Amino acid sequence: MKLPWWTLAPLPPDAAAGEAATARWNSLTKPPGSLGRLERAVTRLAAQQGRITPTLARVHIVVFAGDHGVVQRGVSAYPQVVTSQMLANFAGGGAAIAVLARQLGAELTIVDVGSVHAAHPLPGVLDRRVAHGTADFTQAPAMTAAQTEAALAVGAACVAAVRAAEAELFIGGEMGIGNTTAAAALGCALLAAPPEALLGPGTGLDAAGLARKREALALALARHGAAGNPFDVLCRLGGLELAALAGAYIAAAQARLPALVDGFIATAAALVAMRLNPGVAEWLHFAHRSAEPGHARLLDAMSSCALLDLDLRLGEGSGAALAVPLLRAACALHGEMATFDGAGVSTAD
Amino acid sequence: MKLPWWTLAPLPPDAAAGEAATARWNSLTKPPGSLGRLERAVTRLAAQQGRITPTLARVHIVVFAGDHGVVQRGVSAYPQVVTSQMLANFAGGGAAIAVLARQLGAELTIVDVGSVHAAHPLPGVLDRRVAHGTADFTQAPAMTAAQTEAALAVGAACVAAVRAAEAELFIGGEMGIGNTTAAAALGCALLAAPPEALLGPGTGLDAAGLARKREALALALARHGAAGNPFDVLCRLGGLELAALAGAYIAAAQARLPALVDGFIATAAALVAMRLNPGVAEWLHFAHRSAEPGHARLLDAMSSCALLDLDLRLGEGSGAALAVPLLRAACALHGEMATFDGAGVSTAD
Repeated sequence: MKLPWWTLAPLPPDAAAGEAATARWNSLTKPPGSLGRLERAVTRLAAQQGRITPTLARVHIVVFAGDHGVVQRGVSAYPQVVTSQMLANFAGGGAAIAVLARQLGAELTIVDVGSVHAAHPLPGVLDRRVAHGTADFTQAPAMTAAQTEAALAVGAACVAAVRAAEAELFIGGEMGIGNTTAAAALGCALLAAPPEALLGPGTGLDAAGLARKREALALALARHGAAGNPFDVLCRLGGLELAALAGAYIAAAQARLPALVDGFIATAAALVAMRLNPGVAEWLHFAHRSAEPGHARLLDAMSSCALLDLDLRLGEGSGAALAVPLLRAACALHGEMATFDGAGVSTAD
Repeated sequence: MKLPWWTLAPLPPDAAAGEAATARWNSLTKPPGSLGRLERAVTRLAAQQGRITPTLARVHIVVFAGDHGVVQRGVSAYPQVVTSQMLANFAGGGAAIAVLARQLGAELTIVDVGSVHAAHPLPGVLDRRVAHGTADFTQAPAMTAAQTEAALAVGAACVAAVRAAEAELFIGGEMGIGNTTAAAALGCALLAAPPEALLGPGTGLDAAGLARKREALALALARHGAAGNPFDVLCRLGGLELAALAGAYIAAAQARLPALVDGFIATAAALVAMRLNPGVAEWLHFAHRSAEPGHARLLDAMSSCALLDLDLRLGEGSGAALAVPLLRAACALHGEMATFDGAGVSTAD
């Protein structure tokens, strides 16, 4: 029996390049370790990129959009049509991630994996719909196995294109009204946690909306919570854009391409990717801890800390894009600072 | 009697511009408030710059260097000559702040306010020495009143030049072997806190060094702790580069120029500035919380939270420079994102 592509273990990063990068940090005119977590991030990038001085000139962002059947239970502050409206706003350059991509000089690709309302062809949006939204997972599995496989493959195909363009960093974004509910359901199932552990207001639910979301999560977990393996959990409780993101993270790791993970929803997809394929973890960076209360729980479960903590809760990959200049600056410091020897500066007594 | 220039209250920021900036945030295609602390930072910049959509194209960084008599008590991991060696490294482009200034396209000015060992003229370094280092404040006041006034004026003169160049943001950096000890002493005196509250390893003291630093702080506070007013505290326990920084923050506020404060030492100088002139507070942004344990205490005392928290402890203004791209991205989002109306996106139910 042939194993599915998403279970093939990525190679580990290049430990020798990482060690050489650390040695370089320690030779530079600053107290050892004084650039804190930026030093560790650059060292990991060095190992991932297989060179002593990594660079992040070519950053590619892919935003995956999908709709969620569970929105019929009133779990979002926004109507479902916003998913499709935002596809046009991404492509038109007015959405947050579009502004940030311009600022970074990053490539931005918008992919419809499963919106309900989009009227294709939409200029600047790839139509890769696997389904017109998921099923309401309080009633039935969100996706069939075939749909889940197809959505994983959409993510992988996008990363193949990004890799072919010689990207040095991949950022996955998402758009999907209702997807904090799906992300929370995935997290609860994979971490064996109760709804309260991952429940939050998403885009801005009021107390009544939050109660509906809690109930939807409880119903979904009662119906699907015994799902045996991560693929099955993804089918039952996931979403099309979440599956595409998970597929993208796995394909990036298999292609030796580091990925910078965005907020709560992207982190839930990264958790799915790591459960499907544990070697993925060594290829991920976490950009920020969002205001969504469950995000810290997900990051803790992955033993990961995030670079930024700014109470962001916008999604789209925006938090990851905001962290890119920090990583670029860290790479520039690592690559361009003088050494103690070169600058004639005395070292510690 | 004429009041000293540094006590003249700055005008408050333009509240109407701030309110208009907030209204603009709420019209953009994102959940209200979902850019978290970046929204507040841009709104404050709008009020400070007196326009709805602030920008940070022109950033000016001034690094002030000075030496500290207290280093004879073994309170630093590095020899005093490093202050002067680093002046050449700043000007030569190999120091962290020089790399970051290039990355940002920011102006960088290096000012010697009081090194012991620098052999001027040094290309690229302004010689504004008020003294060849301070006195050991365990034995005597660090500076005379005249020296302190002169150092405050050096900072103000630098800011006047920055303002004349139409800077939109001022960053002050510092270099001075021993200056975490002076910063801690200032903090303890101004906050009536014991040495332990602001003691830390600085550039990397071992346990024996930390014990010497604690003892030096205790001696200094026993000798000078009853100093009556902030100017007197600055004279007795400060440093030449710290006084220049404090003068720069005050002059920036008086000139309606926002300042982005760096780490532990810069924050101690900002605390001095706020005690000399409380209106300065409304013109300051705090870039990061450093690894130096006392920094959180200083930030708490100023009711300020910082944008970044990356375990940085390098100084030079580097943490502030690292936060600039984040603020620029936030300004771009605020200035360039589409509105709900303009993009035809539905608002919350």
